[in-house]
Amino acid sequence: MSNTLGNILRLTTFGESHGPAIGGVLDGCPPGIRIEEKSIQHELGRRSPGNQFFSSSRKEPDKVEFLSGLLKGCSTGAPIAFIVRNKNAKPTEYDHLKDLYRPSHADFSWEQKFGVRDASGGGRSSARVLLPCVVGGAIANGILKKFHCSVLAWVSAIGPYSHEVRGKVSQYAIESSPVRCPDDMTTQKILSWLKETHARGDTAGGIITCRISGCPAGLGEPVFHKLQAALAHAMMNINSVKGFEYGSGFSASRMKGSEHNDVFTMKGGQIRTLTNHDGGIQGGISNGEDIIFRVGFKPVPSIGMMQETVNSKRKKTNMRVSGRHDVCVVPRAVPIIEAMARLIIADHFLMQKTRSM
Amino acid sequence: MSNTLGNILRLTTFGESHGPAIGGVLDGCPPGIRIEEKSIQHELGRRSPGNQFFSSSRKEPDKVEFLSGLLKGCSTGAPIAFIVRNKNAKPTEYDHLKDLYRPSHADFSWEQKFGVRDASGGGRSSARVLLPCVVGGAIANGILKKFHCSVLAWVSAIGPYSHEVRGKVSQYAIESSPVRCPDDMTTQKILSWLKETHARGDTAGGIITCRISGCPAGLGEPVFHKLQAALAHAMMNINSVKGFEYGSGFSASRMKGSEHNDVFTMKGGQIRTLTNHDGGIQGGISNGEDIIFRVGFKPVPSIGMMQETVNSKRKKTNMRVSGRHDVCVVPRAVPIIEAMARLIIADHFLMQKTRSM
Amino acid sequence: MSNTLGNILRLTTFGESHGPAIGGVLDGCPPGIRIEEKSIQHELGRRSPGNQFFSSSRKEPDKVEFLSGLLKGCSTGAPIAFIVRNKNAKPTEYDHLKDLYRPSHADFSWEQKFGVRDASGGGRSSARVLLPCVVGGAIANGILKKFHCSVLAWVSAIGPYSHEVRGKVSQYAIESSPVRCPDDMTTQKILSWLKETHARGDTAGGIITCRISGCPAGLGEPVFHKLQAALAHAMMNINSVKGFEYGSGFSASRMKGSEHNDVFTMKGGQIRTLTNHDGGIQGGISNGEDIIFRVGFKPVPSIGMMQETVNSKRKKTNMRVSGRHDVCVVPRAVPIIEAMARLIIADHFLMQKTRSM
Amino acid sequence: MSNTLGNILRLTTFGESHGPAIGGVLDGCPPGIRIEEKSIQHELGRRSPGNQFFSSSRKEPDKVEFLSGLLKGCSTGAPIAFIVRNKNAKPTEYDHLKDLYRPSHADFSWEQKFGVRDASGGGRSSARVLLPCVVGGAIANGILKKFHCSVLAWVSAIGPYSHEVRGKVSQYAIESSPVRCPDDMTTQKILSWLKETHARGDTAGGIITCRISGCPAGLGEPVFHKLQAALAHAMMNINSVKGFEYGSGFSASRMKGSEHNDVFTMKGGQIRTLTNHDGGIQGGISNGEDIIFRVGFKPVPSIGMMQETVNSKRKKTNMRVSGRHDVCVVPRAVPIIEAMARLIIADHFLMQKTRSM
Repeated sequence: MSNTLGNILRLTTFGESHGPAIGGVLDGCPPGIRIEEKSIQHELGRRSPGNQFFSSSRKEPDKVEFLSGLLKGCSTGAPIAFIVRNKNAKPTEYDHLKDLYRPSHADFSWEQKFGVRDASGGGRSSARVLLPCVVGGAIANGILKKFHCSVLAWVSAIGPYSHEVRGKVSQYAIESSPVRCPDDMTTQKILSWLKETHARGDTAGGIITCRISGCPAGLGEPVFHKLQAALAHAMMNINSVKGFEYGSGFSASRMKGSEHNDVFTMKGGQIRTLTNHDGGIQGGISNGEDIIFRVGFKPVPSIGMMQETVNSKRKKTNMRVSGRHDVCVVPRAVPIIEAMARLIIADHFLMQKTRSM
Repeated sequence: MSNTLGNILRLTTFGESHGPAIGGVLDGCPPGIRIEEKSIQHELGRRSPGNQFFSSSRKEPDKVEFLSGLLKGCSTGAPIAFIVRNKNAKPTEYDHLKDLYRPSHADFSWEQKFGVRDASGGGRSSARVLLPCVVGGAIANGILKKFHCSVLAWVSAIGPYSHEVRGKVSQYAIESSPVRCPDDMTTQKILSWLKETHARGDTAGGIITCRISGCPAGLGEPVFHKLQAALAHAMMNINSVKGFEYGSGFSASRMKGSEHNDVFTMKGGQIRTLTNHDGGIQGGISNGEDIIFRVGFKPVPSIGMMQETVNSKRKKTNMRVSGRHDVCVVPRAVPIIEAMARLIIADHFLMQKTRSM
Repeated sequence: MSNTLGNILRLTTFGESHGPAIGGVLDGCPPGIRIEEKSIQHELGRRSPGNQFFSSSRKEPDKVEFLSGLLKGCSTGAPIAFIVRNKNAKPTEYDHLKDLYRPSHADFSWEQKFGVRDASGGGRSSARVLLPCVVGGAIANGILKKFHCSVLAWVSAIGPYSHEVRGKVSQYAIESSPVRCPDDMTTQKILSWLKETHARGDTAGGIITCRISGCPAGLGEPVFHKLQAALAHAMMNINSVKGFEYGSGFSASRMKGSEHNDVFTMKGGQIRTLTNHDGGIQGGISNGEDIIFRVGFKPVPSIGMMQETVNSKRKKTNMRVSGRHDVCVVPRAVPIIEAMARLIIADHFLMQKTRSM
Repeated sequence: MSNTLGNILRLTTFGESHGPAIGGVLDGCPPGIRIEEKSIQHELGRRSPGNQFFSSSRKEPDKVEFLSGLLKGCSTGAPIAFIVRNKNAKPTEYDHLKDLYRPSHADFSWEQKFGVRDASGGGRSSARVLLPCVVGGAIANGILKKFHCSVLAWVSAIGPYSHEVRGKVSQYAIESSPVRCPDDMTTQKILSWLKETHARGDTAGGIITCRISGCPAGLGEPVFHKLQAALAHAMMNINSVKGFEYGSGFSASRMKGSEHNDVFTMKGGQIRTLTNHDGGIQGGISNGEDIIFRVGFKPVPSIGMMQETVNSKRKKTNMRVSGRHDVCVVPRAVPIIEAMARLIIADHFLMQKTRSM
């Protein structure tokens, strides 16, 4: 069960950061969904490091090859398999790490679990293994389009700088920012702060906000598969994520019921809520309002500074993590958050179809 | 899948707030686990409203009856079924609500999903349906005891008042506080604030912190069933929960890698970390340190004040929620958080057994 | 996973033969399905021993009590839980067996698996634990009725006597026969043979044939959840079942392709097959023809004769199985076969709904 | 769920007969299992058509490429992905079939289910899609070796000729026979009968017997995942399989309890049974005796004779199936049966590990 996500629409992924290939199998996709390789490549491109100073210098062309499940550009109902060859793998670059436990990495815990670990680029614990989620999410988006649902995520904080969007936000504004923050001024502050951080060999975390618009009411499977639980589960599986909240989130804990309640009203002939503290989900089920959630990331643990640690012979030692690492992965995580959200919503949409005769 | 939690240790629950009974079936429990009815009743008692002014006046004796899976007080390996009769059910008390959508309740979204809804006490959307989790968690605790793992949760904030524990915290301190906050002064502030809130007919939210001690390294199933994802999933299914974070949580987003990294060291012949920002989980796998997480609750949506809403005929109207409601459910949610955590850890412990030959 | 059957429509069962109660939880039933307690009791009555000389003398009133998931006689979409109290339990009657391994029973293998076993009436290994399947199947029948699908099973062989139905068979003819064989002459032969067998303290097996009519084309989930695989899986879980075949079954192994192929033709404007050797399933998917399968049962292992065996101290010994046992369970298994078939078809019907947008 | 087999050891497969590649992902394999590519290629070779007159003339080099989950020839605990490129694919060879429903093929039912179908070589409904099971089974064999369990299958009947093995049977005898029947005389009869059948453009079915030796007692998950149910489920998913029976199988229906019961005795200090009518499984759980089952195959539906059928415009027509087809697939199915059995036993072995603390 470990490497499969979803119930009806099920994505099984495989591959290590520096192995021959990574990929996935998406089972349960209804037939007739258009699979646009161009838009999938576009999403993969959004996840790639690009040329930003704060991203890894590893070049990842990440060309997806589909192996099954398609006929004339559409899904057939058979499992959709795809692979991406690892082009720029340099496993030997990691040889010096194979007996060391990098602080706040998965090295130690992974070895405790499996007895062995693949030191190259973190093996299966690398964030690169989320790449198949981007492909799966792009296919799920074809399902979402059928019911006019769309997902948009952006960076709302990096380090000490944050910007909370009120009202609309455009994909253009997000993608125009090198850090995917739709606010210009915050972007500038973040960039100069990241430069300083980078210069010191240090790294940064941040927060991503995601909004799902057009999600029909009725999705979510109480009592143990509520929509927010499925979203939290997916998001918490993303590398470096430390927290998830939806709607008013943790701040709800300081509000009173009279402030927090989303009063129902009529808008354009529809039952709607005046406010949206519940973040589009009530009782674990979507209510037709925008679904809004926030995901918090810790700073990249691969810092350029000298750190104490322990080696596999249980001796204390010092180390410096070399290799090609990011100063901040949060901007690159935006398409992953979107992909995960699309997979979850599409899965719940298909589950809800079993509720009516 | 909706009403089943877990992979090896699987809890399936059933029942509505004002139906004949609620209960559960726990499958996958290894044979030979001692089931102490007394300690299970004790846990159920901790969840019951008690005599606190801020809790519902509904009397819930909540006597559990086991129907299967036990022999001489121990599990046999067969599914363990149990029921709790709903003694104080007053379904007619809710008749005035059956055509109204209570703000920030599940009334509207539930009806959108299923076409029908059971108005009595929220039916299956009531927090009372989590009671079987308390029973399941108490049984799971018998598994945890076998490897000396323990779970302890407490209230760390209600409304504007919070207290962050540093160092040890005792069950005694927690249970001595009527709001399950181990700090005396914070307890007093919370109590007087809750009194005011109650007097105004308003309600409150809060935050619970949970610590899992003695969890062996190696639990968690990357890449889609990481330990934090399983915990988040379980917690986000609890009624009124709006957020989950572990270790440094959202505050990690403002830290630098050099501040956040948990440096490895040797303590008592063991590989340990100097700090615990990672909250006991690295790469989705427990590392042997304490697992610490926080869960945020919104205020109870059933307030005593007049509110605007819409009825099922799509007409705007006003309503006041009567019935027996809590001012703040966070103290009563402490045993539920603990139960959920125990179920998840036990399940992952059993899954990990399949990793070695 | 052990005690749950199905994917969307999921039945979890619990209970031991001589424990307080047996029961089940049916999750995933769409809302609005009528639950007729009377027809459920009728099905339970069909499974009960009745007054036949070849059936156990245990009296099982088997009154079902529903605990959740119903509102005004219809499913609500919430899990449907039900229990049947064990009225005529006599656990002490089995005390003499607790250190003996009855030949061809589950005593030895069960103890090897779980370390413990509940000797009373076989505990969880008794055929009585299939009773909740009858309840679940009756509810599933409410789903089948919505698309005019019906299931009918009958005894086609007991011991040396068999009758293969050609053409139609009526429920009336089946239920008129004390052994549920629709052919009068075969019924008579079976009855007198069973009498002899009973007189010698011996027991008998047999074969049940089942026909599913009106199943829509398109059900079945290749490549690992084909319709025949799901049916075989369900049937092979029934106590004493030793074989499953569908359509031409094992006899197909002796046929040539030119004899076996079901040629397509047009009938009443529909694409139909001239013959039905494929038993209504091609490529793992229903094709709209009647689904026909056969299930073979071994003789009841509880015989009245003296047998050699071994006790738990690994000493050879002799034993005679006393207690209230059936000479032949095959007639009583007819409603169980039907119930299982209904659960599987309803589950696949609901799964197929996720295949269209 | 459709394309995934297993619970702990889970094989997800993908690919169409004439697409770019077929393959699979095996999740849940414990770390440290040796993966011998040579023996995997050997198993794939056993499944390939070879040069037999009764097998398809399609050349399938079937070179497996591993993409993940291995380190120095051993499993790492990460998902093991592998692909086999379709080298001799001739999709256009099937153009004449795309509007016709071949009798007793999946063409019609597949189209009813998915709305579309990939006519090339049957697409996903081809028996070629079972190839990944052979790879998965070979890996599972590495798990079985750890507890000295072995699986051996052979042809016990083709068309009218059958041979029931009593006592031991050697892999050498099986593989020496071109039809994988360990009896020389039966082999000769089958071969000459197949030649006649082939000359007439006709096809044949048959029966395979499989024996699992050294399976520990205690495997199987009652009440809905009994060992025989899991085996039947796996086998019934194999193309052309029409029936499954274990131990005495259908013939048990004609036996009396006193004949059928497997009396317990002591052999070499072990509790054993004198006979093995139960086929090594009692109450759904292995009892340590050899597990024996039989699987019946229908004749290949692709015959060289002219047949009536219907086209997608619902007009009656005639057709002759050209292409490269087998006269009898049963000999080639032997390694598939073995592979499936290995996957199931390994999966149940791993499940059983969760039963002890």
